[in-house]
Amino acid sequence: MENVTRSGIITLTTDFGLNDAYVGVVKAVILGIFSKARLVDITHNIVPQDILEASYILLTSVKYFPAGTVHLAVVDPGVGTSRRPVLVKSKGQFLVGPDNGIFSDFIDESAKVYFLNRPEFFMKQVSQTFHARDIFAPVAAHLARGVEPEQMAETITDAVRLERARPVVENNRILGSVIYIDRFGNIITNIKAEQVRENAIVRLMGKEIQGISQSYNEHQAGTLLAIIGSAGFLEIALACDNAALRLKAGVGQPVEVRNP
Amino acid sequence: MENVTRSGIITLTTDFGLNDAYVGVVKAVILGIFSKARLVDITHNIVPQDILEASYILLTSVKYFPAGTVHLAVVDPGVGTSRRPVLVKSKGQFLVGPDNGIFSDFIDESAKVYFLNRPEFFMKQVSQTFHARDIFAPVAAHLARGVEPEQMAETITDAVRLERARPVVENNRILGSVIYIDRFGNIITNIKAEQVRENAIVRLMGKEIQGISQSYNEHQAGTLLAIIGSAGFLEIALACDNAALRLKAGVGQPVEVRNP
Amino acid sequence: MENVTRSGIITLTTDFGLNDAYVGVVKAVILGIFSKARLVDITHNIVPQDILEASYILLTSVKYFPAGTVHLAVVDPGVGTSRRPVLVKSKGQFLVGPDNGIFSDFIDESAKVYFLNRPEFFMKQVSQTFHARDIFAPVAAHLARGVEPEQMAETITDAVRLERARPVVENNRILGSVIYIDRFGNIITNIKAEQVRENAIVRLMGKEIQGISQSYNEHQAGTLLAIIGSAGFLEIALACDNAALRLKAGVGQPVEVRNP
Repeated sequence: MENVTRSGIITLTTDFGLNDAYVGVVKAVILGIFSKARLVDITHNIVPQDILEASYILLTSVKYFPAGTVHLAVVDPGVGTSRRPVLVKSKGQFLVGPDNGIFSDFIDESAKVYFLNRPEFFMKQVSQTFHARDIFAPVAAHLARGVEPEQMAETITDAVRLERARPVVENNRILGSVIYIDRFGNIITNIKAEQVRENAIVRLMGKEIQGISQSYNEHQAGTLLAIIGSAGFLEIALACDNAALRLKAGVGQPVEVRNP
Repeated sequence: MENVTRSGIITLTTDFGLNDAYVGVVKAVILGIFSKARLVDITHNIVPQDILEASYILLTSVKYFPAGTVHLAVVDPGVGTSRRPVLVKSKGQFLVGPDNGIFSDFIDESAKVYFLNRPEFFMKQVSQTFHARDIFAPVAAHLARGVEPEQMAETITDAVRLERARPVVENNRILGSVIYIDRFGNIITNIKAEQVRENAIVRLMGKEIQGISQSYNEHQAGTLLAIIGSAGFLEIALACDNAALRLKAGVGQPVEVRNP
Repeated sequence: MENVTRSGIITLTTDFGLNDAYVGVVKAVILGIFSKARLVDITHNIVPQDILEASYILLTSVKYFPAGTVHLAVVDPGVGTSRRPVLVKSKGQFLVGPDNGIFSDFIDESAKVYFLNRPEFFMKQVSQTFHARDIFAPVAAHLARGVEPEQMAETITDAVRLERARPVVENNRILGSVIYIDRFGNIITNIKAEQVRENAIVRLMGKEIQGISQSYNEHQAGTLLAIIGSAGFLEIALACDNAALRLKAGVGQPVEVRNP
């Protein structure tokens, strides 16, 4: 397996929030090991313990980083239990975090998954409550400064994978669901751009939308519209307004597409 | 026009919030083009699509950065429509974002404004929904690493300018309004320090304040006071308390000053 | 006194929030003086003017940073009054901020405390409302690039110290209190790990917990448990849930431990 030159960047995705000192402590540990690390926060506002939300955030952000970037992702309801710490190498990117399905979208036949089982790369004392500080931060720092996964871990093939609900296709009808609501109230579905024709009819919560729009604002304010969002998924939006709030739509809500 | 040495700093001001992956993706694109960029978040919590709030944030922060800093500012209700992407060079600072008035305070006779019309400096595929990622981030990165505006854009003279409400002066009376409420509940007006005498009388929502204070805490807790704030505007504050919350004051509220 | 090599890192802990431009302005001033500073946000969401909360955040984060790090901490209800700006050198770390007790946990017999009284290291104009920008940021930047405390300040021995409520020990009974609630709703007390036996009985708000757990998740969801948290204090948590919310517990609430 070829080695990947490191970018020196370490990203952070957690459910730690921005009020406590937890994120600062993780960064302190990283900088203590690799002072030149370039730290980029993706988000620390994942809903506490929501592994699927974190995996969506990673799916839509990791690929934009230069090859050789290390992504630290910690949403870890099983901290202190027997769940393994893992490292995933996938399409030139490295991901470090708990083996709980958070990296599901990155584990395919071309990926390598490792069990982090060499305590010499951890903090000297490992707590039962804060593995981001004691295991994941030091491993991410060593990785970013060039240590190879094989030196810190052994290959495994049984990592936990979670399946995101996939749309069901029946002839010209696609039954999907809402997977994410963003800050603007855009309702993001699991239906992919390539599954939707330009003149498709989209149904959500009793509303029907005719055709796919090219931009949020080609309509009058308050018009409900369907659009292909920046991550390549079908979105439902409200021109100049918050669609999720007005429609009271949430994650899991069914969405139907008919391609005429 | 003289060239400005770059500081290597890129600041970010958006309404993207801190929950989604959008800010992380913008930073990924920047670092992919200019790995040494020093990224500084101003805020990502602009009220969605509030161009005037964003312009106030820029007005009160840009000038503190070293010359040659690039300021990426994206509050962009018109994304995907015909509104132009622009670059403003003003007093040694560079600003990059949509042509919707967000840079109004920086566009004066000494400034240069450019229309970004060279797609070779954009992402290969430009979406209709996320120009921060596809246009503004790459341009900011090229600019910060030394590309000249003239290489990426052509000069224009018809950029959109929004007028912030200006105080009306009638003899010794100034009629202004509230333009911003900060985290502490300080009520910031559009009346400038130089318009207010030390012994002025300030009126807001039926309350009257006699004289301008030198600090928030020279009074008893709970005293309403007028003060010149750190950005040089007249503020109304409540010692050790939240003035905006107690007075139920918001942006747009009239404020009257009488200089005896 | 020996000199400490600087790490080049400056951390920031404030109650400025993330909506206003204040944090960005502080960083602008720092980078204008020391362009290579590596800035790490600890938090900007301290409850406005809550000095004790800020001191807890510092207590649990500063020690993880490399020696020679500068910690800028500004929760400053007395800005503009006669309270002094100070610099504390403690265990290889530097702390800069107001003399209001925020650094109490770092001021011991081995620490040195300085009064910052050399305006040549401040901004040229010092406002009465924003010393973070005008005094603390420039001093932190000079300190991080290698200026010695003695060049910028004179030693003092009468710095303000606040006493955090300490647990009272009566034979095998410890009477402590809640000092912090974290994002997950974990209830953190002032009782230290070494004061609590593994089979201790913990009482809070009429609830009784038997024994100290090793991890949050060795119990069924919804079980109330006591645990030694990552900062070394006794915590009360609810497996897979928010203990503070369910118990309606807040800072100051009494907690009792009985070591059998």
